[in-house]
This record gives sequence, structure tokens and C-alpha cells, in this order.
Amino acid sequence: MRTVTEISKSIQNSFCIAVARLRRYTRATMAANAHFRYEELANFIAGLIENGTLLAGSRVPSLREISLQRRVSLSTALQAYRQLEDRGVLEARPQSGYYVAPAAVTSLEAPAKSRPPAKAATIALAGVVARLLEHGADPKLVPLGCAVPSAKLLAAGRLDRFLARAARRKGTTYNTYTVPRGEVRLRREIARRALRWGQALAPDDIVITCGCTEALTIALNVVAQPGDTIAVESPTYFGLLHTMEILGLKAFELPTDATHGIDLDALGDACRNRSIKACLLSSGFSNPLGYTMADERKLAVLRLLGRYDVPLIEDDIYGDIHFDRTRPRPFMALDPNADVLYCSSFSKTVAPGYRIGWLASTRHMQRILEKKSAFSLCSPALPQVALADFLSSGGYDHHLRRLRREFNENIQYMTRAIEKHFPPGTRVSRPAGGFVLWLELASPVDTRELFDAALEKGICFAPGDVFSASKRYRNCLRLSCGHAWGPAIENALRVLGTLARKMSTT
Amino acid sequence: MRTVTEISKSIQNSFCIAVARLRRYTRATMAANAHFRYEELANFIAGLIENGTLLAGSRVPSLREISLQRRVSLSTALQAYRQLEDRGVLEARPQSGYYVAPAAVTSLEAPAKSRPPAKAATIALAGVVARLLEHGADPKLVPLGCAVPSAKLLAAGRLDRFLARAARRKGTTYNTYTVPRGEVRLRREIARRALRWGQALAPDDIVITCGCTEALTIALNVVAQPGDTIAVESPTYFGLLHTMEILGLKAFELPTDATHGIDLDALGDACRNRSIKACLLSSGFSNPLGYTMADERKLAVLRLLGRYDVPLIEDDIYGDIHFDRTRPRPFMALDPNADVLYCSSFSKTVAPGYRIGWLASTRHMQRILEKKSAFSLCSPALPQVALADFLSSGGYDHHLRRLRREFNENIQYMTRAIEKHFPPGTRVSRPAGGFVLWLELASPVDTRELFDAALEKGICFAPGDVFSASKRYRNCLRLSCGHAWGPAIENALRVLGTLARKMSTT
Repeated sequence: MRTVTEISKSIQNSFCIAVARLRRYTRATMAANAHFRYEELANFIAGLIENGTLLAGSRVPSLREISLQRRVSLSTALQAYRQLEDRGVLEARPQSGYYVAPAAVTSLEAPAKSRPPAKAATIALAGVVARLLEHGADPKLVPLGCAVPSAKLLAAGRLDRFLARAARRKGTTYNTYTVPRGEVRLRREIARRALRWGQALAPDDIVITCGCTEALTIALNVVAQPGDTIAVESPTYFGLLHTMEILGLKAFELPTDATHGIDLDALGDACRNRSIKACLLSSGFSNPLGYTMADERKLAVLRLLGRYDVPLIEDDIYGDIHFDRTRPRPFMALDPNADVLYCSSFSKTVAPGYRIGWLASTRHMQRILEKKSAFSLCSPALPQVALADFLSSGGYDHHLRRLRREFNENIQYMTRAIEKHFPPGTRVSRPAGGFVLWLELASPVDTRELFDAALEKGICFAPGDVFSASKRYRNCLRLSCGHAWGPAIENALRVLGTLARKMSTT
Repeated sequence: MRTVTEISKSIQNSFCIAVARLRRYTRATMAANAHFRYEELANFIAGLIENGTLLAGSRVPSLREISLQRRVSLSTALQAYRQLEDRGVLEARPQSGYYVAPAAVTSLEAPAKSRPPAKAATIALAGVVARLLEHGADPKLVPLGCAVPSAKLLAAGRLDRFLARAARRKGTTYNTYTVPRGEVRLRREIARRALRWGQALAPDDIVITCGCTEALTIALNVVAQPGDTIAVESPTYFGLLHTMEILGLKAFELPTDATHGIDLDALGDACRNRSIKACLLSSGFSNPLGYTMADERKLAVLRLLGRYDVPLIEDDIYGDIHFDRTRPRPFMALDPNADVLYCSSFSKTVAPGYRIGWLASTRHMQRILEKKSAFSLCSPALPQVALADFLSSGGYDHHLRRLRREFNENIQYMTRAIEKHFPPGTRVSRPAGGFVLWLELASPVDTRELFDAALEKGICFAPGDVFSASKRYRNCLRLSCGHAWGPAIENALRVLGTLARKMSTT
């Protein structure tokens, strides 16, 4: 029998608040009532969660499976699972089974709310972005730099077979330019999926693009001229800042919180001062901070922008990679009358190599088509045909379920490793989707120096300063969790953490 | 025995000066010396050319084939072919056989040299270009509008099989972003081919783009800012004008001759006045005029531009479709030190559906890569892999030989039909490559009205005014010869000609 002091110590030492809570309950209960078989089983499952075998958000064995494995009756298994559910350790999902409840997997604090300067900044990142892309594509480095999912995790063999079939059977038919909007069957599949989360789109409201990058390029061209200023979250995706730089646009960085998103007051000020031409925000699982704004906050953003006739460009590239049961609703789905240009792609979920994204808008289609046809005429036909076949086959949903689980596991393993190896005071984001982590180091570690030191050790990550037009976040960094957890990644985090510890004490 | 008057009448009536010359020689000779078997055979071949069975530039049966077919000895066949060669009717090509000599296939005059206004013009074509693209993609219309080769003529089944194979075998490997330059194997194949016509390129001097359109977009972005002026040939490809319009660029239209190309004095004036930021010219078989500038004139252009530090963007998209034995040399090949941005693609020769073009430059690569990564990050991987495999297999050269023959035939058939059906005084271009014809109507026919009337009859063509920023060429039109000659095309030309005749008399 453990004393209260012991128990309280165990909470302090735990890396996981939920697991600590669980331990307190289950250990105590086990000692007292070990003679109940269902409690033995509940304790066994709780142990698997504690030691990291079962991760938050992962599926636990079905009642039938566990009753066979542990040689208990179905009713005992059910009693055990219900007990764990009552304690908030498991959650039941209709037609799907029992899952480990989402929990704070770390005792590390979330990054502090950002405080960028309240003025537009000219962007000059092209050089550092080019250098990052170059190292990010180097297969000899441990790939924590670019947010590219590992080809192995994507396992898009089924999509490739659809492409092979389309090439063999429809090569001649499709060896021509598509209409600038792109293949109608693919647009129809995209519109059908969008309906699930309340986004009412017709196929003709959609233009297929060369990835989300071309969608953003076109959207920015539609709403702004060179010299104009766009409000963005801060920190924000460096590729977006790079595109804005090349288009001659300035960035107005909004103070952003890793949990709640952008500061509405700051956005309101920018609108009132007429200093921004558009606002560009993440629909969910923001890159790099990982936050998703609550629906009511999204609606407040739309009301604010609508009052000043400022269009919103939203980037929903990570939306399908949600660890919770429900997918975040895009801004566009919350108010169909709002002036929104919606950008997304399949590059993070199934096929970065196919370069298929899309841009949806109910207001600006004519100008979008003008830009698309002027910049690249149309996108390649057969990859669109293959993706349409893949989507209509149902293969994408099956694939997404597996992928979400894997990214979620990667993020949890990596968060634990960061807690273990990085210097005290390190803060880390807690994304409920996507596959990047944002780290804020407490001490005066310069992540640009850390980047150079890490490259020498064969490790690539994204240093913080590329995520800001005003060159902030020199003490921050982003880690991609797009490759399966294993000794190579674990060792890289140990090395990175050790380097950061050294730098923090010098 | 025909009189001199009869013979002279036959010349007047003939649609083809070469054929007329041939007729005079061969008929006269036949009557006098019909007892020589080789002359009978020569006469037979000449008849096939006269009646259009064998077209200028097409291969005639081999000596072995014709000796079997006509039951003559090999030496008789050789004597006949040599006689036709002496008369300039056939030409022998080493290792390839005998071909009908290129000849002026029409007695129609070439279009007059253009006289655009000597000042920069703001472009406002987006609406009419969108309308043309829309009708151009309508499969119900006879496709004389957009310069899109028919999928049947392209017959790219072998390329599609390479794509199917790449998808099956290399799908996982290539399911990632390529470097912004694109797949190195494809760039190596492109560099190897370029060596044949003296263009010394390393694979790293090349960036793969989404067709020639993206190559031109990036090139224009590298050399110019919104508000700048670019010198272009006039008339010029409407897609280029459309891209320039969307990029906020103005056009300085150069007087252009359908045979010799742009007016060098006008270009010199524009350079001296510092009124242009770059010059954009066709490398060969200009769209729509069809001219190719002679090498010495190209060199003069480069010297002129070099003197004023004005970069040249060249568009070589039709270069591989040459009817003569040798391929036109791009500007870049004539002077490797000149400041040239070279754009091309595979869209006109094998795979419009693949959207693979490229941009080559030895001077501006860093800025080109910045633009490419900002606008579309990189191009899809598997189509590049398939095309590299296809090129290295030698399949492209085989395919090009057939394609050149077919486009040449289409152009000749269409030119004859134009001569037959269009109103007197119609002028037509004489391209030695590519697959478009430019028509200039003598009388006050408005080709915008003709366009509307033709659409009602189910025929699409490109009206002249979309080829000019200053809205000239209302009496001109462009016809695509990208679909195989047949009754549908012939009938469409008859209908178009009849409509034009009616309009010219009202």
C-alpha cells in the first residue's frame, strides 16, 4: 500500500498527467480489489497505456480480442472497459470500438503567445528557404526538416495502381489539355467529400492546382497586388512567406497563441487601419503551431473581416489528419456567404509526388481561372483521373484512418523524447492533428546555430526564423513527425537535445 | 501534244507552282519518249504528286518497293528517281530514301508584313482568350481553334506504358516532392537532345515546368516587374499575351514579316529608347505566322539585345516539328554567352496531357528556382520519370518522324482547300514546321463576326484580334492543322470559305 506522499511523487515524475491520474486510481484500486478479474484486466490495459504500448488516441483491442487474449469472459472485458471509460482513460466510439482517451502527453508547457511587431514587414527569406528545401530533400539527413510525409507511411500503392490503369486504358483519351478548372470527376469527388463537413461546393467552384502552393499563389494574386500587405498568423509556414515575398507582398504578423490561434483584437486593428488587403489563416492544425481555432472564434474572424470587406484565404492542407473523431470545419463551411478562398491539397495525406491541390471559391472563379490559365494553363490529366478513381473507390478513407493513427503515434513518441532529452524549460506544441511540432527553447539557444551543428551530425530540422517575416523565433524550431518513429528518429532527438543543452549552458 | 497556251493556262490554274513545273516537263517528255520505261515510271510518280497522293516533303516508295509494284527492274526505278531528282521534283536523303521536294504548295501570297503601332500597349484580352479556350475545348466543334495536336496523331501509347510501369514499380520511391528543378534523369535527357542542335546545357541549367506556359510565366517574372514592357512579334500567340496581361506587363509589338520575322530596326529603336525590359521571340515556326528567322538574323538580334543588356526569352515549343531535314537552331545555341531564357515543352509533340515543359538558362538559375518553388514548389514526379524513360528508349525520335510527316500533309491539304474555297486575295502563311496557318483576308471581312457565324456551323478557329495587344488583325485568322485531314476538316474549310466569301461581298 503506497502512501499519499508516494502517490503525489509519482504524479510529479510522470510525463503524462492523464497517465498519472490513471496510475493513482488503478494502482490503488488494484491493491485493494485485485480479486476482481475485471479490475485486473482494467489494470493491465492501464499499464499498457502507462508504458507507452498504447498511445493516446489509439484503438485498444476489441472486447472479443481482449477476452480471447486474456482468457476472460466478454462480460468481464466489457466491465473492465466501462470502468476505464468512467475514469476517462478510454473512450467508446460508435461502430468503431474503444480508444485511449486523448490526454496531455507531456508536462512541458505550450509555447508562449507570440508578440510580433504590429506593422507590415517586407519579406526576405528566399535564400534561407532555398537552403532549407535543399537540405530537407537530402536523403542522407534524418528528415525532421520539411513537413513531408514518408513515402512508406503514405503507402499509396493503390493510388499508383489506379494511375497505371488510367495510363494504360485512358492514355489517348486524356492526352490533351483539360479545361483550366481540371478534370470534372476529381472536382466532383472533392465536392462530395467537402459536403461531409458542411462545405457546400459545386464542382465548378473548384480549380485543380499544382499542389496547395499554386492554389495559394493564385489566391494571393486574386486578392492582392505587389506592395500590398497580407495578415498572417505568426509564426507561419515559411513556404507561404516565400511565395508572398516572390509576389512582392508584405506580411502583417498577428500575435498567435499555440492553443487558441490568432489575436482577434490585433486583426481588428489591422482591418480598421486599412493596412491589410487580405488575411491568410490555417483552417486547422496550423503549421507550425498546431492550433485549431474553435468554431466560434472562426465565426468571429469572419464577422470581423466581413465588416471591412477583407477576404480570407484559408489553408486546409492538414484538415484530414485529425486525431479527434471530428474533422475541424473550415471557415468556408461555417459561413457560406463569407468572402473565402479555400486552399488544400492531397500532398500531406496521400500523394506529395502527384502535386494535386485545389482552390475553391464561390465569388472569384472568373479571376481564378484567368490566373490559372495564365500561369500554367491546366494541370496534368492522368494523375487527376487516377486520384478521382482512388477517391471514388473509398480507398482514401481507409488510408486516412491508418495515417492519422501513425502520425498521432509519431507525435506522442517525439513529444516524450523531447521531454526526456531537451533542456529544462523547453516548450512544445500539442497538435491534435497534422504532423509537426513547434518547440520554444527557454535559454538563449540560437536555433540557426543549432541548425548548422545538427547538419554536421546528419540531422535536418526547420529553424524558427524562417517562420517569420520579422526574423523572430530564433529560439524556436519546428520538427516534422512525418516519418515513422524508430531508433534513427529517437537518436536524432537525443543528439539535438544534447546540442541544445550544451548551447544553453555556454 | 499540248500547245504553249494550254500549258501556260495549266500553270495559271494550278494550285502549285512546283506541280505545274513538273507537269510541263513530265507530260511533254512523256508524249515524246513514252517508250522509255524509266520515263513512264517517272511520269507515274509525277502524277501521284500532281494529284496530291504524294505531298511535298513526304517519302516516296523505296526503289525496291516501286520496282516490285510497277514490275520494273531496280536499275529502271533508279533511273526514274534520278531523273525526277535532276528536275528538282524528288530529293534523295542519305540512309532515308527519296522524298518529294519541298515546294511552294500554293499560288496564294504570304501575309503582308505587319505594321503595329510603335508604342507599348496595355493588354486586355482575358475575356476573349477565355472564350476561345472554352470553345477550343468543345469536342462538338471542328477543332481548328486551339493549336492542340489530336490525341490520335500523337499516339503516345508507348509513353503511357512507361507511365504505367513507373507507377507500378516506382510509385513509392517517387511519391515525394522532387527538387524544385525536377527529376534529374529527365533534365539529362533534355540536355542530351539539346546538344544535337548545338545547345550546350547541363542538367542543372534546366528547370522542369508545368508546360511552356509556366516556363514563360517564370521567365517573364525573372526579367520584368508589373508595369514593364516586353517586345513581342506581331501577331503573336494569344496565350503569351494573356500571361503578360495577368502579370501586369505591357506589349511592344514589333512589325513582323511572315517569311523573315521581326523588323530589326524597330527592335533597335525600342532598345535605344530604353522602352523595353526584355524581348520574347519564337525560336522557329512562330505561332501564328510560321516563319523561322535565319541564323544570321538571329545573331543580329542577339548582338542588338546584348548591346543594350536586354534579355531574350525564346519560345521553342514547335522546334521539333520541322519539315526540312534540319532543325532550326535556337538563339541560345547560336551564342552561348547571350542572355537568353529558353522555354519549351513536350505539349505540341507528344503529351499535352502530361504538362511537362522546361526553362533553361545559364545566367538566372537562382532566381528561376526561387520563382518555381514559390509558384508551384515542383512538378509531379511520375510523369517526369515516364518521359525520361520514353526519351532514353529512343521512342521520341521515331514518333517525331511520323508526326512531322503528318503535320506537313495536313498543312498542305489545308492550304489547297483554302486556295479552293476562300475569297480571292486571301493570303496564307507557308510554315516549314509546326501546325498552324495564318490567313489574311483581302476584303473587309471581320473575323470576329466570322468566328460567331462559324460557331453556329459547328466550327471553331482563332480570330485574328486575339493575337495582338493593339487589337489588330481583325481581317486575319489562325487555323490549327493539328487534326488529321479528312472530310470533316475539308467540309469545315469549305463552309468557312463560303462564309468569308459572303461577308466579303456584303
